[in-house]
Amino acid sequence: MARTLPQPDREHIDLVSVLHALADPVRLELVRRLATDAPLSCTAVVEGIGITASTASHHFRVLREAGVTSTRQDGRIRYVSLRSADLDTRFPGLLASVVTAVGGPAYSATSVREIHS
Amino acid sequence: MARTLPQPDREHIDLVSVLHALADPVRLELVRRLATDAPLSCTAVVEGIGITASTASHHFRVLREAGVTSTRQDGRIRYVSLRSADLDTRFPGLLASVVTAVGGPAYSATSVREIHS
Repeated sequence: MARTLPQPDREHIDLVSVLHALADPVRLELVRRLATDAPLSCTAVVEGIGITASTASHHFRVLREAGVTSTRQDGRIRYVSLRSADLDTRFPGLLASVVTAVGGPAYSATSVREIHS
Repeated sequence: MARTLPQPDREHIDLVSVLHALADPVRLELVRRLATDAPLSCTAVVEGIGITASTASHHFRVLREAGVTSTRQDGRIRYVSLRSADLDTRFPGLLASVVTAVGGPAYSATSVREIHS
């Protein structure tokens, strides 16, 4: 049976926690990959980033507990999605500006370098 | 003679560093107060927040080194201003969305509580 892992309600999503969750090159890359808004399996999201399963699990937890993502466990598979609507209600324009920044050519070189350093 | 303290060039302002600099309730409050874009003395900016001079100095340094603010030393007085144009060129909409979020009634109660806890 599918269940949603614990996450803050929309009104309890905290700006400092969201900014902290986003202030990491790996998590920014995960957010960029999730920006399609379709739920993706954790395995698919981290593909090719070159991090261990436990590191990936840590990053997904930070994003979920901050309210940036929602995680649904379906059997042995976890599906992750961005909480775009909730974040845009709480902090209009914030997630969109971060996704634009991280997806732009000005950032991508830095991103790849930092992730693999 | 007035001089500008060391700060990253516009093209070296890094998204992760900016998000990290903003991910703190005191620094968010400083950014909110600086959102008029007029240079303000450090003393004026921190008035009433209830932090020591050394703590204030630390927070101003983090903001400056991340490229969020510019600091000009004029004799014994330091004037701080947001690098709004530089940030908006690098990461369009990001600073504006954060200033809106931190200035909104949804955040202010949390902000004051966290700063004084």
